[in-house]
Amino acid sequence: MKARVHVMLKNGVLDPQGEAVRHALGAMGFDKVEGVRQGKVIDLELSDDATEADVRDMCEKLLANTVIESYEIELA
Amino acid sequence: MKARVHVMLKNGVLDPQGEAVRHALGAMGFDKVEGVRQGKVIDLELSDDATEADVRDMCEKLLANTVIESYEIELA
Repeated sequence: MKARVHVMLKNGVLDPQGEAVRHALGAMGFDKVEGVRQGKVIDLELSDDATEADVRDMCEKLLANTVIESYEIELA
Repeated sequence: MKARVHVMLKNGVLDPQGEAVRHALGAMGFDKVEGVRQGKVIDLELSDDATEADVRDMCEKLLANTVIESYEIELA
């Protein structure tokens, strides 16, 4: 079983990495860019008896800092 | 217009971040995890006249190091 987890900074939390990318794109002439947010994507290869609840548990305990980050889980 | 870009290390390229996460999850008792790959997700807010070709150009020139990384573009 595979799971993909997206971890993004919550709205309102300053994202210096995203801002750096936005500035760099602007400096390179990409003037259609209005905003950039950068986050992490974590692809998990799991044994077949794993459940979404297991993945949620991993997110809460390790993968995301839920004070400032939100996460989304996609199972495949 | 919004675009989401995933940038992952290519298969075969060592992913120390992913390995670190795998070890940490194992040490925490998550024994159903068989493999972890970690990458970046970049959410772009673009003006409405931007096209997928613009985003591809950004990936090739800045967002991904195409020697070792692959990227996927999703438009929303």
